[in-house]
Amino acid sequence: MTQREGRIGRYVRMVAQPGQGDALAEQLLHVADGLRDVPGCELYIINREPDEADTVWVTEVWTSQEASDAALSQDLGDAGIGRVLSLLAGPPDLIDLAPVGGPGLR
Amino acid sequence: MTQREGRIGRYVRMVAQPGQGDALAEQLLHVADGLRDVPGCELYIINREPDEADTVWVTEVWTSQEASDAALSQDLGDAGIGRVLSLLAGPPDLIDLAPVGGPGLR
Repeated sequence: MTQREGRIGRYVRMVAQPGQGDALAEQLLHVADGLRDVPGCELYIINREPDEADTVWVTEVWTSQEASDAALSQDLGDAGIGRVLSLLAGPPDLIDLAPVGGPGLR
Repeated sequence: MTQREGRIGRYVRMVAQPGQGDALAEQLLHVADGLRDVPGCELYIINREPDEADTVWVTEVWTSQEASDAALSQDLGDAGIGRVLSLLAGPPDLIDLAPVGGPGLR
């Protein structure tokens, strides 16, 4: 295995209140921009789901659980995650992952 | 929106035959290495699912549907996707995505 100790990832599925998919994606892009210089953030990619206008997925990779936790407690709030949560129809669904390699990982 | 026309992504969930999760992940890393210089391949990240030893997820981003189709018809075969398929317990599940931006996208 080429797994690097400590790296974590997740897919986060968010469903906006009806008709709010565009607003949700815009706000998540704003959050993503705020994370560009945050230590340990390798990927924070915002994705629309083509056939589900109110569904947005975030692809996350962090260098460690600690980096992810630190961002959640500070940087994500500064970047506007509160506004994201206010647009949701329900809590996000998470799929936790352990990234092991491939093009696109540093 | 900062969406770039044409970029596509997907999450691919593969479940190996019982006990074959390590072999599946190894073979997918081999495929991923073979895609490093393939035109249009932005991300092809192999991920284990921590609590499901036989489940592997692939995070894909391609510059266009055409680039993805071209790889499927040639490069993925050359890289050993056939061996991957032989390890699976069933067909892969796909979640199709339209990536729109964020750290980690070129």
